[in-house]
Amino acid sequence: MPALEFFRLQTRKEVLALYPRFAAVGTEEVDLTAALGRVVAAPIAAPEAVPGFPRASMDGYAVAARDTFGASVGMPAYLRVVGEIPMGRAPERAIAPEEAMRIPTGGMLPSGADAVVMVEYTAEHLDGTLEVRRPVAPGENVLHPGEDVAAGEVLFPPGSRLRPQELGLLAALGITHLMAYKKPRVAILSSGDEIVPLARQPAPGQVRDSNAYLAAAQVQEWGGLPQIHGIVPDDFPALRSALAAALATADLLLVSGGSSVGMRDLTLAAIQDLPGAAILVHGVALRPGKPTILAALGENPVKPLLGLPGHPASAAVVMEVLGRPLLAHLAGLAAPPPWSRSVAARLSRNLAGASGREDYVRVRLRVEGDTLWADPVLGPSGLLSPLIKSHGLVMIPLGVEGIFKGEEVTVQLFGR
Amino acid sequence: MPALEFFRLQTRKEVLALYPRFAAVGTEEVDLTAALGRVVAAPIAAPEAVPGFPRASMDGYAVAARDTFGASVGMPAYLRVVGEIPMGRAPERAIAPEEAMRIPTGGMLPSGADAVVMVEYTAEHLDGTLEVRRPVAPGENVLHPGEDVAAGEVLFPPGSRLRPQELGLLAALGITHLMAYKKPRVAILSSGDEIVPLARQPAPGQVRDSNAYLAAAQVQEWGGLPQIHGIVPDDFPALRSALAAALATADLLLVSGGSSVGMRDLTLAAIQDLPGAAILVHGVALRPGKPTILAALGENPVKPLLGLPGHPASAAVVMEVLGRPLLAHLAGLAAPPPWSRSVAARLSRNLAGASGREDYVRVRLRVEGDTLWADPVLGPSGLLSPLIKSHGLVMIPLGVEGIFKGEEVTVQLFGR
Repeated sequence: MPALEFFRLQTRKEVLALYPRFAAVGTEEVDLTAALGRVVAAPIAAPEAVPGFPRASMDGYAVAARDTFGASVGMPAYLRVVGEIPMGRAPERAIAPEEAMRIPTGGMLPSGADAVVMVEYTAEHLDGTLEVRRPVAPGENVLHPGEDVAAGEVLFPPGSRLRPQELGLLAALGITHLMAYKKPRVAILSSGDEIVPLARQPAPGQVRDSNAYLAAAQVQEWGGLPQIHGIVPDDFPALRSALAAALATADLLLVSGGSSVGMRDLTLAAIQDLPGAAILVHGVALRPGKPTILAALGENPVKPLLGLPGHPASAAVVMEVLGRPLLAHLAGLAAPPPWSRSVAARLSRNLAGASGREDYVRVRLRVEGDTLWADPVLGPSGLLSPLIKSHGLVMIPLGVEGIFKGEEVTVQLFGR
Repeated sequence: MPALEFFRLQTRKEVLALYPRFAAVGTEEVDLTAALGRVVAAPIAAPEAVPGFPRASMDGYAVAARDTFGASVGMPAYLRVVGEIPMGRAPERAIAPEEAMRIPTGGMLPSGADAVVMVEYTAEHLDGTLEVRRPVAPGENVLHPGEDVAAGEVLFPPGSRLRPQELGLLAALGITHLMAYKKPRVAILSSGDEIVPLARQPAPGQVRDSNAYLAAAQVQEWGGLPQIHGIVPDDFPALRSALAAALATADLLLVSGGSSVGMRDLTLAAIQDLPGAAILVHGVALRPGKPTILAALGENPVKPLLGLPGHPASAAVVMEVLGRPLLAHLAGLAAPPPWSRSVAARLSRNLAGASGREDYVRVRLRVEGDTLWADPVLGPSGLLSPLIKSHGLVMIPLGVEGIFKGEEVTVQLFGR
């Protein structure tokens, strides 16, 4: 059985570099109305052009632009109104030179017209004469066929997450179904003889299974499907069979709790007893979060197991720093842009780093005048309340001794 | 019928100041496993203290701190190990002076002990003698009863949105149900004779109902329950009865489309024909988004109707700027903190503002060296593709002529 003393701490980058050995989950067809936030699994090409016809983008008159060249308030161009374009239908006729047709926003331009004069710059006389007081350029106030999307154009690369505007464009193209990555199923097992279910009143020495609910909510927030598998006693056969059962139904296993050395050793032994198991990481250079485990389990596909520290704040940080990128990788998601989910702030007091470990400090944000301050929220990682008071994390990099009061820091915000 | 020419544009602040006349939606009991992102509707007080007993936060030995005072490597303190504390159970005995008990992380301190010496600073001899090489202070490596949460403490004020860590704390307290605001039901009606359902191939002059899907996804992303009510023809009785039906089942009505003057007038007339209806806003000082309507409908409760511009980019911006705060208000949500969902960037080109209107410019973010650039994505608001290319919005305030290239701007990011 590997002893705690002998493992080498791996850095965050070393751990992240192991993720490509795990394959993304499979794909499924998703209805457009259920596609928000889903990850595109196959290139989507536009089946047709949008707009499909030349559309007016203003209320006014469809004209040939050249008929308005040189028009002014003093010297208007005079055209003849030959009809009105109905919404939702093709124009009944074309226009000839020096003719115009009334057109609503969204109306289809008649043949012969290449621009729309806004109604504000015109006057229509009772005899059907249109006075145009400003010239329009060819194409002005018109959306051209294919200007939004050309037929055949690839809309979104695989790996992108669908936002409302992407769904709008898919709707405009009549795409009601698409291939997306499945949501990764994440089994959450709680280990430890001191853990009792939520509904039970803990006896002295016992605590409720809170870490599982915290981790499950993080998984849900980040687009996974959490499965709470309950509490496994500190017993090798029970732990082994619970892991094997979770492996059969989940894409990722989280083992929460087991913060004592004995429990960690038992968890490691149970993992190693599973077919194809390999311990990849046993201890990470993070504070908090050192006693983290990453293992590979099973075959076809090989699935990851992340063993979380028992202290709630440590588990929450490890989930943010290592669990979230792992879930994103399994979900087929491309790397998030660097500006997402972070904000710049000034640190309100000196902070010392953790020697040899990347240090994650919880902070609460506070606006004072024009300055956004990050107030460190200190407290043992066994407590939940400092996490409740915090808005995000400040990282003190490996090899940095500390950050001074007043320095600008990047706060990684909690949340999606 | 009010004509387009006569309305006075209202500013964003004027529109937001109208929201308090609408009441928040009702409340409901929510299961903890379904509570992520829900808005707390009533104060939640802790029914008990967390931790409920003094807990070790490290593996080591439970001791009376005074027995270790002055201990060093050269002059260790010598204690007698009198047993081991099992996980999940109360200690079988108390310790007397100069006694110690083995304790795992999470174990319950025995009576007589007030600190834990980490195992690293000890050596246990075969005869049961414990060598302690470093002193501990009273309380060291111990989580005290009530240190996380005191019994009776109010946990979260009404109006706060539940994050994973809040669910973790509720779980620790055994709170499996709570009162939350209901998710606001948002009816989305599409008006316009040119609009066809997604599944139909548009004839020349027709377009698919894409704005409804964009708005529905925004509503979903922001915590509402969208109801797509389909397409209403440009016809007064049809529009009036569709609005009345939506009013019966929704907390907020969005009328999408109807971008032509005629359609807007028809929508206004249908709204005004409903019982208790009042047009509060008809035209806003926003670019894009000028032809926006806000109305109050019905009685007990009075419900808001937001009439969105027909151009997709205009509708999306009005939803971000006016629709999202309205939905948040109805959802009982407290004002979001100012740092959320935004990032500072440098503008990559000069931008002129819109005279007399708050101007919202779509931007794409780009990292170059250490600088985050915001590239304006220009294009008619009738197109969807500029929204797809964009990551957020830069606002040019009312009365500001423009922003110069290189100036720092706040980008309001799209998304939750």
